[in-house]
Parts: sequence; C-alpha cells; structure tokens
Amino acid sequence: MRKVVYGGAMSFDGFIAGPNGEYDWIVMDPDIDFAALMGRFDTFLIGRKTFEVMRRMGDAAPPAPGIRNIVFSRTLRPEDCPQATLSDDAEQLVADLRAKPGKDIALFGGGELFRSLLAVGLVDELHFNVVPVLLGGGIPLLPSPADRARLKLKKHRVYEKTGTVGLEYDIFST
Amino acid sequence: MRKVVYGGAMSFDGFIAGPNGEYDWIVMDPDIDFAALMGRFDTFLIGRKTFEVMRRMGDAAPPAPGIRNIVFSRTLRPEDCPQATLSDDAEQLVADLRAKPGKDIALFGGGELFRSLLAVGLVDELHFNVVPVLLGGGIPLLPSPADRARLKLKKHRVYEKTGTVGLEYDIFST
Repeated sequence: MRKVVYGGAMSFDGFIAGPNGEYDWIVMDPDIDFAALMGRFDTFLIGRKTFEVMRRMGDAAPPAPGIRNIVFSRTLRPEDCPQATLSDDAEQLVADLRAKPGKDIALFGGGELFRSLLAVGLVDELHFNVVPVLLGGGIPLLPSPADRARLKLKKHRVYEKTGTVGLEYDIFST
Repeated sequence: MRKVVYGGAMSFDGFIAGPNGEYDWIVMDPDIDFAALMGRFDTFLIGRKTFEVMRRMGDAAPPAPGIRNIVFSRTLRPEDCPQATLSDDAEQLVADLRAKPGKDIALFGGGELFRSLLAVGLVDELHFNVVPVLLGGGIPLLPSPADRARLKLKKHRVYEKTGTVGLEYDIFST
C-alpha cells in the first residue's frame, strides 16, 4: 500500500516555519538529493495555510506532469487554486487515495493537516531534515494538543557540510 | 572556560516533559553511558518548576560529593531546598560561575531557565537525546517567544536498540 509521508525541514525546537511563515532559516545542504527524495511521490497534500504562503511567494505553479497537488480547505473556492484539486474532507480523501495504486503521498505542510490525519491513523512516516537552528517560535511540526504517537527510527543521515540531520521514522498512532 | 550545557531527553516534536511534567516516555537506551555524560559536570542548574517536579517525585536527594545543585526561584525559601543553593538571579550567578575554574555546568531543565540564559548568551551547548515519540504537547525545550539562535552540530550518535538519536550542538546566540 502507498505510504503517506509527512516531511520537510524543521528547526531543532520543532518548528516547520517561523512566526510569519518564514523559511529563510532552511539551509539547503548540497548533499541532499531532493530529486531522489521527491521521486517517490506522485501526490502532494497541502494545508490551506501552507497554500496561502505558497501563493504569497508566487509558488503556486502548475505541478510537474504526473504530479497531483491537493489543497485542503473549507473556505477556498476552486478558482483560488486552478492548478490543484480542492477538498474539504482530508480524512475521506486520504483514506481513498491510500487504497488506490500509485506512488507514495507527501504531506507537505502544515502542522494542522498532520494533526488531523495523525489522529485517524492516516500518516505512515515522518521524514524531516533537522536544521541546526532554534527558531524560538513559529508553526509547530505538530500543534498542541495532540495525542502521543510512538515512532520507530528507520533511517538517519548526517549532512556534514551544514550539520543538517535527516531522520526517518515509522509512525504508530496510539 | 567552563561550558554551560543544556541537555536531557526530548521528544521529536520538541518537548522535554509531557503536559503534566510526565517523563514516562523517556526510554533509557542501555548503550547510553549516563555516568560518562554526567562526569563532565560539577554543577547543576535547576529551574523552579523542574525542582517542584523533582520534589514531588521524591527526587530531591542530596547531590553526590563534589556536586552542587543550584535552584533558581523568586518564591522558594532556603528551607524548601536544604540540599541546594537557592538563587533568584540566574544571569549574575551563571556569569560568575562561568568565570571561575571548575568542571562544566549542566542546565538541567527547564525551558524557561534556558530561555532567559540563552537571551543573554550564557548557554554554550545543547546536548539532547531525541526519543522516538511525538508528545503532542507539554513543556517545550524552548518556550515561545524566544530569539533565534544558530547552532553548529558537533557530534551525533544513534542508539540502535531504541532509535534514540543523541545530538550535540554549539550555540551561537544572535
């Protein structure tokens, strides 16, 4: 079965973006093979707030051929995201997607979408690159309160040039 | 000069204790050599809330010979912590301690003490064991809001039996 993988960059203190959505703190280690990392996915799940940030940054470009972007929102209209599928029911849609054949599914921000999918056992893996910085505030990886979940370390890699630590875990929702 | 090191166990999502101070989630990997880790310290800095938890757990025992515990609080009285030095001025006391000869100094919880000492550049290193769990809430490693600080990865170790990841950083306060 295809996996749903929540991933990206995080600060050591557990934030995926600064207080105003900043991602200027993310160092791109030259040894991280983003193409290889991205190659396992054909579907990207995007929360509404993350989509708004992408749009502000002029980053809501059409996806590459064979890639499907799905934006979750109860307030956006289809014309707000013409390059993506719009859904207001993450739980049902992700359960359906997981049951279909295809490549893995990337949960590409934000924390609230992760929390709601985690609560119903629909996220299989975490894959984060821990950037050597303390942000001291911002958008948490997992907003509080959320239930505990047990993890199992699958893989790790240290990128020596920047001190970024890549960690991959299986998630066991309790 | 002696170093001030903030360390302990943290969850992957950046908490050092659960919502009620719980530390039942901390797995003790048999390969972690706590005696060696602790051997570099002769002084332990303890925040008031952490001290209260230790006291509740019956854990406020006298320190080993040669070890000095310092509790920071504006409300506790000396008779509340007969086994420790009590101080209400962390900044001055830690600046003084750092300038004196001795072993390194451990900042042993909690997050608020770390935040105030970090803000004045008085913490040199982070040394945390990342436990494979998402707590979803609790006492943060660094309470928000706090200033950004750049880190430099010094050392890492993966404890395979439990999937705990030990990470050591130098801190560059900005």
